Order: sequence, then structure tokens, then C-alpha cells
Amino acid sequence: NINPKVIDQKISLIRKISMKSGEYEDVINLTIGEPDLPIPTEIVDQTILYMKNNRMGYPMLGGSVEIREEIVNFYKTKYDSSYDIDEVIVTAGATEALSTTLKTILNEGDEVLIPLPFYPGYLPLIDFSYAKSVFIDTTSDELQLTVESLKKHITPKTKALILNYPNNPSGVVLSKKNLDEIMKFLRDKDIYIISDEIYSEITFNNDFISVGKYHFLKEKIILINGFSKSHSMTGWRLGYILASKKLKDELIKVHQYTVTSPSAISEYGGYIALSKCSNITTYTNEYKKRCEYVYNRLNSMGITTLEPKGTFYVFGSLNNFNIDSSLDFALDLLENKHVAIVPGIAFGVEGYFRISCNKSVEILKIALDKMENYIKKYRLN
Amino acid sequence: NINPKVIDQKISLIRKISMKSGEYEDVINLTIGEPDLPIPTEIVDQTILYMKNNRMGYPMLGGSVEIREEIVNFYKTKYDSSYDIDEVIVTAGATEALSTTLKTILNEGDEVLIPLPFYPGYLPLIDFSYAKSVFIDTTSDELQLTVESLKKHITPKTKALILNYPNNPSGVVLSKKNLDEIMKFLRDKDIYIISDEIYSEITFNNDFISVGKYHFLKEKIILINGFSKSHSMTGWRLGYILASKKLKDELIKVHQYTVTSPSAISEYGGYIALSKCSNITTYTNEYKKRCEYVYNRLNSMGITTLEPKGTFYVFGSLNNFNIDSSLDFALDLLENKHVAIVPGIAFGVEGYFRISCNKSVEILKIALDKMENYIKKYRLN
Repeated sequence: NINPKVIDQKISLIRKISMKSGEYEDVINLTIGEPDLPIPTEIVDQTILYMKNNRMGYPMLGGSVEIREEIVNFYKTKYDSSYDIDEVIVTAGATEALSTTLKTILNEGDEVLIPLPFYPGYLPLIDFSYAKSVFIDTTSDELQLTVESLKKHITPKTKALILNYPNNPSGVVLSKKNLDEIMKFLRDKDIYIISDEIYSEITFNNDFISVGKYHFLKEKIILINGFSKSHSMTGWRLGYILASKKLKDELIKVHQYTVTSPSAISEYGGYIALSKCSNITTYTNEYKKRCEYVYNRLNSMGITTLEPKGTFYVFGSLNNFNIDSSLDFALDLLENKHVAIVPGIAFGVEGYFRISCNKSVEILKIALDKMENYIKKYRLN
Repeated sequence: NINPKVIDQKISLIRKISMKSGEYEDVINLTIGEPDLPIPTEIVDQTILYMKNNRMGYPMLGGSVEIREEIVNFYKTKYDSSYDIDEVIVTAGATEALSTTLKTILNEGDEVLIPLPFYPGYLPLIDFSYAKSVFIDTTSDELQLTVESLKKHITPKTKALILNYPNNPSGVVLSKKNLDEIMKFLRDKDIYIISDEIYSEITFNNDFISVGKYHFLKEKIILINGFSKSHSMTGWRLGYILASKKLKDELIKVHQYTVTSPSAISEYGGYIALSKCSNITTYTNEYKKRCEYVYNRLNSMGITTLEPKGTFYVFGSLNNFNIDSSLDFALDLLENKHVAIVPGIAFGVEGYFRISCNKSVEILKIALDKMENYIKKYRLN
């Protein structure tokens, strides 16, 4: 007699593959969404200093003024947004930001639009609100959401659209043209735009546009970001929401009653990350180098791949190969070559796989050599 | 078109009084639920050492083996429980533990029994699950829940009973007789027992009994605790759930999708708290001294008060005074004497008020002198 929406949740495919990969001692695990680059030392050092000299009491509801000022300035300067410090909630990770957002806005029966491929963590949260996930296939549009495909899925029940660019798993960044058209179309619609921009800092050509730039839609936008990917602060559990004052005043109630606040220690670390370490170019360059290496290797073995634009993932297509099931492919590769990747089906699309570039080029090379050796027998002509 | 259960949530009375108290420079704020005693230095020192030498990546789902072992051993040794390490979830504070629990077990229309007076944070979480809070008045039973009063409120829709002993705001600990009878009565009922034991470590006579002792009810018990009150670790946001494997396997899904995990830094701090600093007798003695001082002072001014058994709160009755509204009383006292307390109505009972003993006896004396001076004119004969 427990909540059936909870009982229905199964262990995710990513987790299954990751767990199975633990069975092989010499496995190269390319499934992991956690940065391998270290956290900037200044963040740890300054946070330690702060812990020595300050009591870690309950943080201010919504976050300290200092970190909220940094967040607002960062987004205004870099992404042309128009939020002020009363339009920020500092959260216990981007996950809590997402869960708080969906819990606040969704009612039973609401439809949430999600372009494919998608980050699977959204689904349970939509389920928990008795709402419905509606997927938008983008595989014939180079994995870009277009206004045409969006239009086809709008119904009177459409409550929100989740954008996740730079995209996990594809690394795609929406083109300015597509984003402009989508935002213009949504202007007079009663649809919330939830923009999960957690990979915003890991882009390779400075061509990522935040939805925060579209001031005319501010009342409908809920923008989510955090420190896990940009500053390798996964274990610190720190994220944030930017939203108009009116929306924020509702979101903060769910935030408060669900978690009270993030850790005061982590909050200070995030303040240092933005005030002293917001330039992470060396990190971005390293991810770019790795993604481009993987991209080139995949293409040379006949695996069609979009040019990497951001994130630390490369999403390869199996369309030149005699492979029906991406899951079988991933499991066979793991079993035969001890290389773990995530099948596209885990992100809602068949015929693809995701490689995470959180390993050095040297290790990626070993993995890709093994993959090349394995996949060639499936090549179509 | 936002979730109406969210819109319905109003700012809490405790928060209102606390905010209003900020208007007076010389206010003595006795509304605060945050320990004023410092965190044991060893926790901070060891955590800093750990941060210097370890990467703070995603913690293991549900918590590290080390902290789960400490929790299980602590509860087994001190409270005679029978949980093993696969029956623990380390959470982002007891608040997240509560929110995860209620979200997991509740369905629309379910009834949740809450003895009065009660911690107001439960209500929004029950609302968010479209369930109903049903209160049990205990004012004629010395603020003890009895099996007789419990029986009267059971219906076919009763899904759970929330126990919160030592109780916030009253400091009451359930007697062994009452708890035995309640647990025996619930034995063959299909009702979950959610036991919020966050104040367990702050008891004055070692007479607190955990529901974890009632092994025959293990399949129905969800036990919640944390580090905020016992170790003054409020800002660290660390708590835990103990529940049978079967329940835990469902609870952990909601935990995972709502927050992923608590901070890895905090989790290590909690491990140190239990492995090196589980004896907090000096803290308990200090709270006991303060609570007894307040108790004696209140009684001497004619305010009926139960003998303090635990927590750092004293709950006074206004029944000997010509005061109808506890809220008006609290507001008038604040305005006239600049002493901030929380009216009983904030906890669901009229005719009481809560004093938090998170100030030194010297400061408590000043506040109580002012209160004595103020309240005497309302004394009935």
C-alpha cells in the first residue's frame, strides 16, 4: 500500500551497466557522469579556512546573500540574464532543484515535454507528481529540438518543456535559430520552460545560449544550474534555481520543507567557486581535447557522430552497423572487451551509445582500440 | 496553474515571530530551534583533515558503509534496535528523511495521525502528497499520547502515525506504559509508525525508549534521526532513516531522485560524530540545567509546566492567566518586553507557549524577569 509511483520505479539502465562493469577487474568504465578532473584547490582551501573560523549553522533560507549575489552577477555577465538576488534559491544539488521545480509546478495529468535523447532522472520526478512525460524525437533533426517538432506535441495539457543543453547524453547545443524560434513560439503559450543548464560551463565554442537571455519569457522560465560539472563538486551537492520572484516565492516553499537548505559548508564552497574560480578554461580545454579525440576515432571506425559542442560525452550512432539493440551492444562490449558504455536506449533513443570522456586520452585510446576491434564485424558493407 | 498544495502553504507562525523579533535591537530571541552549543571540535578537525586528503565525489547511494555501520551499531547498542547496514539511508538532514518517507508511503486521501502539540514541518509534506493530517489532542493526558486517544482516531484510511518523542515543543517523553500499549495495539494494524527521534540524545533521565526496540513491528516502522540537535550540526544537513530492507528499498528511490545524497563532507562529519563523539553528556547536562531553571522560574510565577524530560524546550501553560490567545500573548510580550517566544497555537494547541533554552542561564534569567513582570497582571486570582 505504498505509493505505486514509487514502486513502479526500476533501477536505471545506467546504474545496471555500471554495476555489472564492477564484475570485471580490468574494466574501462566509460559510463560515469562524474568529472575526473579535480576540484580547484582554492575552493577546498578557502572552505577549510571558513570552517575553522565560523560556526556552520542553518544557512539563510534560499542561500546567503553573498552566494546569491555571485550567482546573479555570473549569469547576468556571462549569459545576459536579468535576475536579482531575490530570484535565486541555492539548492542541495541540481537534482534537488529539479525535484523542487517539478513538485511545485506539476498537477495530476499535466504533460511535460522532453526532447530525446534525455537525462533519465527527469522521469521519476514527473511520475511522483502524477504527471505524464511526452517525448519529442529529434533524431531526424541532428538531435536538435526544432519549433516544428515542438508544435506537434503541444496539447491543452502541456504544462512544461524541459530543455537540457548542452545536452546529456548528446553534447548538442541548440542553435541560435532553433532556440529563437522556440522561445518566440512559446511567448504566448501558458507553458513553463525548465532549462537544465548544468553543463553550461563545459562548452567548446562559446556558442551556448542560456534561456535566461530571453527576458520576455522570464515569468515562465525556471533555470537550473549547479557546481557538480563545472567545478567537479559532485559530492558537495550544490545547485541553484533562477526564477522570477513570483515563481521563486512558490518554489522556495517546497525547497524549505523538502530539505531546509544545502550544507552551509558547500554553500561557502560554491561562493568561492564563483567569486574566485569562475574561469575554468583549462578544464574545458581538457574535455574538448578528449571529446575531439573520441569523435575522430569513432568517425574513423565508421561510427557517425555529431561534432562535440559541449559536456564531456560523445554520442555515437550505430546506423552503419548491423546492430539492432543498443543494450545488447553495450552488454556484449562489456562482456567481451571489458569496456563499459551506456546504450542509447537508456536515454530514450535506440541505435546510439554514450561514451563519457572522464578518463585520460591514454585510457580512452585503449578503450577505443578495443571497441574498434570489436565492432568491425558488424559493419554494413 | 501551479500546484495548489504549494500555493496553500503560508509562512509559519514560528518564522513570522522570529522575523518580527528582528525589529528590536535588544530582543532576547527564545524562538530558535538551533543549538547554541558549539559542534564538538573533533568533528570539524577530522573532517578538515579528510577534505585535505580525499576527493569529495558522489557518496555511495544510501551512505558510505562506514557511517551506516556506525549508525546501526549506535542504535543497536543504545536503543536495542535490530537494523543492519542494508536498512539505513543517510539523508540530507532529518527534513529530507521526513519528506522522503512521507512521499514514499502516502497516497491521495490517506490519513496521517499526529499527536498534539506537533512540529509544524510535517503538515506541508502531508499536503504535498494529497493526504490528510488528523490531530490527536493530548492536553488532558499530560501531553502524552495514550492508546485510548489513539484508538478514537483510527479509520480505514489511517496510513501512518507520526511519533515525535522527545517532543518538540513539549519536551515530553512517552512513558514505557503508554508506548508499550500503543505498540501492542498497532501490532495487527496496517499502519506505518514514523518515529521522528531527532531529540533522542537530549534526554535528562535516560528514560527515552526508541520505537526501534519493538522488533515485532519492524516491518511497519520508519525511524528518523540526525545530527543537528545532538551534535549542533544544523548547517551540515545530515540525518538518516532506519527501516526494514523492504521499506528501505522503496524509500531510497525517492531519496535518490530527490537529492541524490547528502554532502560527502557532511557524511564524513557524521561518521566522526558517531565514532568519536557519541557521548554528549556535557551538552545534555547544560540543556538540563537551563530547562530546569526555566521550569522552576515558570512554576514560581504561576505558569504550570511539566517537568522537563528532554529537548531544549520548555512548554508553559497559560491556564492560570486571563489570556485567550497564545499568539496575542507572544506578540504583546515581544512588543512590550522584547522577549520572543513561540505561541502554542503554532504547534496546534491553544493556551501554551514554547521557550527555547538555547541561551545561557544569565540571558534566560533576564528574559524570565521581564516575562514575570509582564504576565503578573493577567494572573487569575
